[in-house]
Amino acid sequence: MGIIVQKFGGTSVADSEKIKNVASAALREKNKGNQVVVVVSAMGHTTDNLIKLSKEITLKPSEREMDMLMSVGEQISMSLLAMAIQETGNDAISLTGLQAGIQTENCHMCARIVDINPSKIKKHLDEGKIVIVAGFQGVCEDNEITTLGRGGSDTTAVAIASAIQADRCDIYSDVEGVYTCDPRIIKTAQKLDKISYEEMLELARVGANVLHPRSVETAKANKIPMRVRSSFKLEDLGTLIIGVEEMELNKPVTGLACDSSQTRIVICDVEDKPGNAAKLFNLLAEKNISVDMIIQSYARQSNNTNDIAFTISNDDLNKFNQIKEEIYGIVNTSNIHIDSDITRVSIVGAGMIDRPGIAAKMFNTLAQEKINIKMISTSEIKISCLVEKQYKDQAAVALAKVFDLDGAEIADVKGDLPVV
Amino acid sequence: MGIIVQKFGGTSVADSEKIKNVASAALREKNKGNQVVVVVSAMGHTTDNLIKLSKEITLKPSEREMDMLMSVGEQISMSLLAMAIQETGNDAISLTGLQAGIQTENCHMCARIVDINPSKIKKHLDEGKIVIVAGFQGVCEDNEITTLGRGGSDTTAVAIASAIQADRCDIYSDVEGVYTCDPRIIKTAQKLDKISYEEMLELARVGANVLHPRSVETAKANKIPMRVRSSFKLEDLGTLIIGVEEMELNKPVTGLACDSSQTRIVICDVEDKPGNAAKLFNLLAEKNISVDMIIQSYARQSNNTNDIAFTISNDDLNKFNQIKEEIYGIVNTSNIHIDSDITRVSIVGAGMIDRPGIAAKMFNTLAQEKINIKMISTSEIKISCLVEKQYKDQAAVALAKVFDLDGAEIADVKGDLPVV
Repeated sequence: MGIIVQKFGGTSVADSEKIKNVASAALREKNKGNQVVVVVSAMGHTTDNLIKLSKEITLKPSEREMDMLMSVGEQISMSLLAMAIQETGNDAISLTGLQAGIQTENCHMCARIVDINPSKIKKHLDEGKIVIVAGFQGVCEDNEITTLGRGGSDTTAVAIASAIQADRCDIYSDVEGVYTCDPRIIKTAQKLDKISYEEMLELARVGANVLHPRSVETAKANKIPMRVRSSFKLEDLGTLIIGVEEMELNKPVTGLACDSSQTRIVICDVEDKPGNAAKLFNLLAEKNISVDMIIQSYARQSNNTNDIAFTISNDDLNKFNQIKEEIYGIVNTSNIHIDSDITRVSIVGAGMIDRPGIAAKMFNTLAQEKINIKMISTSEIKISCLVEKQYKDQAAVALAKVFDLDGAEIADVKGDLPVV
Repeated sequence: MGIIVQKFGGTSVADSEKIKNVASAALREKNKGNQVVVVVSAMGHTTDNLIKLSKEITLKPSEREMDMLMSVGEQISMSLLAMAIQETGNDAISLTGLQAGIQTENCHMCARIVDINPSKIKKHLDEGKIVIVAGFQGVCEDNEITTLGRGGSDTTAVAIASAIQADRCDIYSDVEGVYTCDPRIIKTAQKLDKISYEEMLELARVGANVLHPRSVETAKANKIPMRVRSSFKLEDLGTLIIGVEEMELNKPVTGLACDSSQTRIVICDVEDKPGNAAKLFNLLAEKNISVDMIIQSYARQSNNTNDIAFTISNDDLNKFNQIKEEIYGIVNTSNIHIDSDITRVSIVGAGMIDRPGIAAKMFNTLAQEKINIKMISTSEIKISCLVEKQYKDQAAVALAKVFDLDGAEIADVKGDLPVV
């Protein structure tokens, strides 16, 4: 007996047959005596169709009206799921973000949840219903409809789980769990039974697309155990994500991830004057360009200049090019190198905290493979190296071997890894 | 300078080009200095697609979840229309039934509007925006989403017009106005410049499918002038619907309509006992079968029985057949005749009130055409005759001629008459 929140993504509710399958998954937990809340995304194709419609009207729609348009996606899938559960003779009710009490910031297309009033969800649960909630959406002041942006539905699920003090939040998708490495590269990648929030966060940030960091952060803050599991293999338990204090640490490195969606920017000969870097990164923040892996070299004594290197998402490259002239003005040089032919290879593990030598082992392994490291960044439980894109698989295979991330058997993964 | 409410049906917002056309129609009124509220239906195909999806899940969906599903239709069209207006550089905002303050009964799929709180609509109008409101929907207690059933979007428009004390409510569709008779039968049918609420109500009730009686009743009660006009000929003023006191009555008969969607039921040899008829019609009402044109013959002295005849909608014939046994029990006879091969031909006109002889003229005309009259029913401003279906056109042509409803020129009507 407990409270379980389940979340199903767009591919899991893509058509009526799959929606019936989700109904089974919900009833499976209900029949064990649990109270069940199901959070759903829009059906796979709905979102694309709605975007297409809006593009026929305008190429720069207002964010407020886009939220109004896009929020219908979940309303369709959730009402159909309620019907599918009712068709089996069980009681269910679907709730919009507003009805479920999901309050967000006053901001469109990327709002964050600020509060959930779970009284209506709880009332329906206590009446024995399976409660279905629209993921990805909420309301801000004055009942304005907002959407949560990338990773929104996972975040809805974890936030609701926190608000109703659920025992677990299960994220169902078409992968069977969290793997030590990408099974498309390392055929013998192993599914992890458990991973800590901290490790999952680092893996998510460096390119493992299983979960969005937002949802993991929320789960960690509220101590909600999460499970990543397959909507097509309901008996499979997937991977449990819990606090590091509940984990027994065996290996220093838990997982490995590659991310080829970044571009490296190197600005050479920047005059070494206080405030230059601040101005540069302020400008990038202003333009909503997220920056990662920042490195500033020591100032050269000879001409009092240094080099600043950082990575940005390929998606932001157009925005960056539009402000290049402005940047020239700030850094007083036009010596800027842009390189998109790169991959970031990262290893993550809470076990590396007290074990020295992990970084050295990583660098040695890449050196032995004759792979040049272009940039390095580290956190307490993560080491990332930037390498040429052509070496992505070679680096991953070598590191998986050295850090014992490849299993004896070939991983059995169907479908693409979801992009959150 | 005034306040105009415009309503556009599903065919008027069927695709992105048509939505841009609606944006033009709204801006046309706005640019005359008016405040403009636009009420929209769902895009033509959306409703069908949503029903198809629900049928893949269940054939008996709960009405509550159907309302949840169907209400997305207007949310799509209204947000697209807001984008289309914004694309022209003008300000617009779309509002759901909830946001627009539309409160309905606690009832799904056929709720009636009980109250509108127009404060949000007024606020946005005062800020210079064109306000777009979802037709057909509202909320009842606890922010539950409801839909209004047949004629719902027209009713939304008129109810909002009443709540904000609009100067006029324009119902746009693919017909150019209200005609003296169906232009598909009488090629020379004339478009009326004006018609009274009362006449429009009678015409709507006896088969003219231009407007649903609900919306006309609401307009009449609140004295809101309505216009029926074409969304494809914006310069055309269509037909104005106003109070009878504002009309100058010229002709006794304003319009003619035919309705072939009724079935005649005749129950013979009903024992002439007090309460029999009441029991019968109570049962029909209980089963939600609407009855029209009730006639009871004088009791025959010989055997103390009489005949009861009435018409019901063809749509309700299945329901009627299911309770036939029960009816036998009430009326103590199984001598029931069912005839669907009929048409009701009606003439309507506020001018017939003080002019005797209109009914006689109608019966004479049909007699000259050798058309047998099977049933007659009248109101103060309407006379309906039931005839065999094969005589529909012949009766309409003869009556249009006698009552001066056919013009010198061929009516120019494009598209089907809308079914409300």
